[in-house]
Amino acid sequence: MSKRIALNAFDMSCVGHQAPGLWKHPRSRADEYNTLEYWTDVAQLLERGLFDAMFLADVVGYYDVYRNSAAPVIKDATQIPVNDPFMHVSAMAAVTKHLGFGITSAITYEQPYPLARRFATLDHLTRGRVGFNVVTSYLKSAAENHGLTDQISHDERYEIAEEFMDVCYKLWEGSWEDGAVKRDRAGGVFADPALVHPIRHHGKYFDVPGIGLTEPSPQRTPLIFQAGASSRGRAFAGRHAEAVFVGGIRPDLTRAVTDRLRDEAEAHGRRREDLKIFAMLHVIVDETDAKAEQKRRDYERYADTDGALGLVGGWSGVDLGRFDEDDVLEYVRTESIQSFLTPFTTADPNKKWTVREVAKHISMGGMGVPVVGSPQTVADELERWIDEGGLDGINLAYHVSPGSFEDFVEWVVPELQKRGRYRTAYEGTTLRENLYGAGQTKVLDTHPAARYRGAYAGQPSAADTPARELV
Amino acid sequence: MSKRIALNAFDMSCVGHQAPGLWKHPRSRADEYNTLEYWTDVAQLLERGLFDAMFLADVVGYYDVYRNSAAPVIKDATQIPVNDPFMHVSAMAAVTKHLGFGITSAITYEQPYPLARRFATLDHLTRGRVGFNVVTSYLKSAAENHGLTDQISHDERYEIAEEFMDVCYKLWEGSWEDGAVKRDRAGGVFADPALVHPIRHHGKYFDVPGIGLTEPSPQRTPLIFQAGASSRGRAFAGRHAEAVFVGGIRPDLTRAVTDRLRDEAEAHGRRREDLKIFAMLHVIVDETDAKAEQKRRDYERYADTDGALGLVGGWSGVDLGRFDEDDVLEYVRTESIQSFLTPFTTADPNKKWTVREVAKHISMGGMGVPVVGSPQTVADELERWIDEGGLDGINLAYHVSPGSFEDFVEWVVPELQKRGRYRTAYEGTTLRENLYGAGQTKVLDTHPAARYRGAYAGQPSAADTPARELV
Repeated sequence: MSKRIALNAFDMSCVGHQAPGLWKHPRSRADEYNTLEYWTDVAQLLERGLFDAMFLADVVGYYDVYRNSAAPVIKDATQIPVNDPFMHVSAMAAVTKHLGFGITSAITYEQPYPLARRFATLDHLTRGRVGFNVVTSYLKSAAENHGLTDQISHDERYEIAEEFMDVCYKLWEGSWEDGAVKRDRAGGVFADPALVHPIRHHGKYFDVPGIGLTEPSPQRTPLIFQAGASSRGRAFAGRHAEAVFVGGIRPDLTRAVTDRLRDEAEAHGRRREDLKIFAMLHVIVDETDAKAEQKRRDYERYADTDGALGLVGGWSGVDLGRFDEDDVLEYVRTESIQSFLTPFTTADPNKKWTVREVAKHISMGGMGVPVVGSPQTVADELERWIDEGGLDGINLAYHVSPGSFEDFVEWVVPELQKRGRYRTAYEGTTLRENLYGAGQTKVLDTHPAARYRGAYAGQPSAADTPARELV
Repeated sequence: MSKRIALNAFDMSCVGHQAPGLWKHPRSRADEYNTLEYWTDVAQLLERGLFDAMFLADVVGYYDVYRNSAAPVIKDATQIPVNDPFMHVSAMAAVTKHLGFGITSAITYEQPYPLARRFATLDHLTRGRVGFNVVTSYLKSAAENHGLTDQISHDERYEIAEEFMDVCYKLWEGSWEDGAVKRDRAGGVFADPALVHPIRHHGKYFDVPGIGLTEPSPQRTPLIFQAGASSRGRAFAGRHAEAVFVGGIRPDLTRAVTDRLRDEAEAHGRRREDLKIFAMLHVIVDETDAKAEQKRRDYERYADTDGALGLVGGWSGVDLGRFDEDDVLEYVRTESIQSFLTPFTTADPNKKWTVREVAKHISMGGMGVPVVGSPQTVADELERWIDEGGLDGINLAYHVSPGSFEDFVEWVVPELQKRGRYRTAYEGTTLRENLYGAGQTKVLDTHPAARYRGAYAGQPSAADTPARELV
């Protein structure tokens, strides 16, 4: 039987996310990102389309590598201004019942104690529909404005992240035992202190001696998302991620990435299929291939290559503004440029990738590609991506929002359903059930968070030991 | 003409807020604090009652001074478990149009750059209805679980807070000039980089060289709340606070506090009336005085003195568990105990305040008092509080939620309206307009945030200087 295709909508609380300039298109409502109506409308649309989740990207900085300036991205609203993605989730949750919400948080600048509470709170309010996209921030501007003179080194960021997650798991899974909360009005007991435990965490980066602030939420641990592409990032994903995001320019190349990720999962005692891997794609669909191609050309007129080069600067650290638009980048013998260029040259070795060509590509698809055509063409192509790429799902970015999502729900969802490749109803009510099936609300037993389930039972609790002595 | 009485509802994302034990009452829905329905129901009720704001308290720790243990407060759910108050605001905003939301944030554990974004995001999503209750955390358990071995000293916490606010004001008021955002689709300009400025803040505690992440929100600076009672806290309030919360046991004693606060405001170049001062009160109202007294006695049966002593421990640092319930506290010659006791002995010098009496008082009114009676009696008493206490409004705590608020809206609001002491319709759409009148959406000119309005015009911007060089 063919694998069901999972589906995330990729959005961000900003005007220009992955398709800089497209906010100017008459169909775009992306500049309404700062209104609740935009978010509740999109959430309801996605739930109508039976999406697994809305995935919210985030940066706590801005892109100022290109031309050594933030001016290009400000002019075009490319990921700046950018709002806090946590803030609109409860409004979206109030108008939906099944849709999940994956929220990006750059833990480099957070403390685990309050962040664990933030996610647990949302898991309560959404009744188990929250995911946590673990990011170790890549923007120098983010580091600087958080009072650091420069970024923490890449590998140390991951070392901090490992311990950070460990603290969160202890708080979410271990501190409050199942059954600790009684809500017993007649007996006068809200919770039994004997079943609430201090986690007594004393690590290299964090000291969290106390008890968790929140009672157990439906999922306890939110669904863990991750997108790291480096080898250290892959190891982190293999251990922690339940959903992983990858870029994608050609399915066969993506296959190498997904295979390596699943190897990592196995190396950490998990099954290959425990990782749900999503490739970022844009879809432009209409009644016929011709109409879709016409739509693509129409979109392209609004694309902004300056904003695209702004994104490239932030993602790669490479300022392509130092070159002429017609310079062929393969001829530039700088390691960071070649490293950035690899996916492009591998995908299309015969093409001469100039600055202009790279900018054009990014402006219409980020580090992915647009899939363009009739519902049948698009469905064929998505099936090919899933099967050849060894993927579980698509992380659907937009050119115009919510227009791109509307088109997908109208044209592509019915076609995939006809082919038996897409759900016709939600299986459960929590985000984890959306991905792992009905009943799987908590982390799988093989997940590192699971080891803290009941781990403190019988150990010192809030009841039998004065809290202060445990510190 | 008599002064209009302003009204905040005092709530917290927890089960037992100011009336420990009352969650067990059949009328209480407080244990639904972790559902969206509870919050949207309460918000709609408050807006029907024309409240100025819902004010959300918060702690990022728990009360473990009493009996050197968190067990008493866990058993009774006294402010633990506690959810993140930011998380349910957008759902409440989606079902209301005027009600403001004051959110407590303990800035001791925050960085100004992301916190400024969080408030700005909510100010956008609520269309200008957000307030920021600036707190410098008082719980040792909060400090410990944020990786600090002990709390930062009281005075240094306020010094940090001063600089913290300064950074926020620069980001909210100064970084993006009025008119910076064009949203010009035809011209291809979302924002003009020449009107967006790095704030170049380099202080003792924070370095924030860059530009703000958010475009200007309706209020720009959220309404600033504060509740500090110490002399350092009063100075902070005199400078920064637009709304101040005070405790209240007797109106004439509260008058001394409000006079000193308005003196502080004057000392900082503001008018006495620029401070809107709210006293925390509980109200128990019914058709007649007798019925209200009956209701009070019914509530009292559910009150929990153990939870109350837990709160006392956290607020005062004094463990009253070291004494016998019948010990008269005046006879205990410990400074911290006498300091805590002062409001009680001053209000009622003839009473012998035993541990039991203090616990009983706190369990039914926190550091305030319940006002009990018919709508007429309650309105008389509230008018007396406002006029004798030199107050602007009431910070209405609940015994049962939303029951206490329902009773107030049903019985007291019409009575106050009849007397011309309460609004009959909202004046504007933003929180600041609720308190300062229609049109006053931005901070008053005398507020310290106002000094950064347009302060960077003509100075280096994102357009004319490479971003990195400004650092």
